[in-house]
Amino acid sequence: MDAERRLAELGIDLPPVAAPVASYVPVVVSGSLAFVAGQVPLSEGKLLWSGKLGAELDVPAGAQAARRCGLQALAALRSELGSLDRIRRVVRVGVFVASAEGFIDQPKVANGASDLFAEVFGEPGRHARAAVGVAELPLGAPVEVEVTVEIES
Amino acid sequence: MDAERRLAELGIDLPPVAAPVASYVPVVVSGSLAFVAGQVPLSEGKLLWSGKLGAELDVPAGAQAARRCGLQALAALRSELGSLDRIRRVVRVGVFVASAEGFIDQPKVANGASDLFAEVFGEPGRHARAAVGVAELPLGAPVEVEVTVEIES
Amino acid sequence: MDAERRLAELGIDLPPVAAPVASYVPVVVSGSLAFVAGQVPLSEGKLLWSGKLGAELDVPAGAQAARRCGLQALAALRSELGSLDRIRRVVRVGVFVASAEGFIDQPKVANGASDLFAEVFGEPGRHARAAVGVAELPLGAPVEVEVTVEIES
Repeated sequence: MDAERRLAELGIDLPPVAAPVASYVPVVVSGSLAFVAGQVPLSEGKLLWSGKLGAELDVPAGAQAARRCGLQALAALRSELGSLDRIRRVVRVGVFVASAEGFIDQPKVANGASDLFAEVFGEPGRHARAAVGVAELPLGAPVEVEVTVEIES
Repeated sequence: MDAERRLAELGIDLPPVAAPVASYVPVVVSGSLAFVAGQVPLSEGKLLWSGKLGAELDVPAGAQAARRCGLQALAALRSELGSLDRIRRVVRVGVFVASAEGFIDQPKVANGASDLFAEVFGEPGRHARAAVGVAELPLGAPVEVEVTVEIES
Repeated sequence: MDAERRLAELGIDLPPVAAPVASYVPVVVSGSLAFVAGQVPLSEGKLLWSGKLGAELDVPAGAQAARRCGLQALAALRSELGSLDRIRRVVRVGVFVASAEGFIDQPKVANGASDLFAEVFGEPGRHARAAVGVAELPLGAPVEVEVTVEIES
């Protein structure tokens, strides 16, 4: 995989690895799978966006927040694996969208993360996905993204 | 496994594979696991049921919707694997139920999918499951079902 | 791993295995992963806590409920595997917290389960985690916990 080169070509700088808010770790590797903890969009411990889709946030802002979560997941993976080039493919992405009554565009929000993975990894970046609308998220985040990837053994 | 024969005996025709609503894929195979993207009950791109459990939909309708999601997951797996007979067992099923205030029968709704897998696969169709009640689902769907199966290597 | 001895030192008695409320099984082993079904805090088929965080329950009660779910997951794993010493590490924990409007302390609730796994397994008990706030949970439970562990092959 050529993800690191692609990232450079796209001019994407990964954010620092967000410290887990609690007693867990950012990434666990088990066999050929790496599980990344759920990411909310943070910078220096503060939310970059807050509120619910369909109320405080519109779809473009939600998609940007989801993309930021995706970038943080990549940062966590690079930190754990040494290089994103060890990733063979993105396997599964779970996207939880804090949703006000009647908001049903979770897929458009989730695309913020999905499109990022397609940009960085190409075809192997395409993944199985579940996107759902939840009542509330940690700290008041609008979106939380959980990622599982396959790595070279 | 004899799932294809069993499906025929049960007189079940699988629906066409639902095209992902966005930039992801219906199934990802990684090692001996196949991850199916979250399914909402669709026919020709339109929801077959919509609304929330405990409001617009009752439990039997919700269970039917979950069964339909299960059928779509099987259709996606057959399309990816060539035959359901390559499935060794159903591993995990996640069921998200759009729930109005006070609706707490998510397990009865989820049984619509779980019972289908038991019918088609027998004992290896029994799986670990998480069923939860969410605020909103894509397009206004009442239920979304995510499936992981083990396949022959 | 020394989890059984550690459990004894901590004076922790595991609860009986909660029978699945429906047509699924408590644990599925696939390769080196064991998937535990979502647990709600039950004793003899009755909820030990009910209601939502931010309304009927406060954070300490929610964390206790999450810990109870974690204990039930360990009980299910011991029953399936014969001994917790066959567990090499905790891989992923999903925590669903029934959340009233405005409740954003899902991580503190989820720590009830996460801290338990760290106590029992030490460093290998630390895991990737997703904690989200959902609208409703089965039976009116305040929390549901889903666990994936890696086992000796």
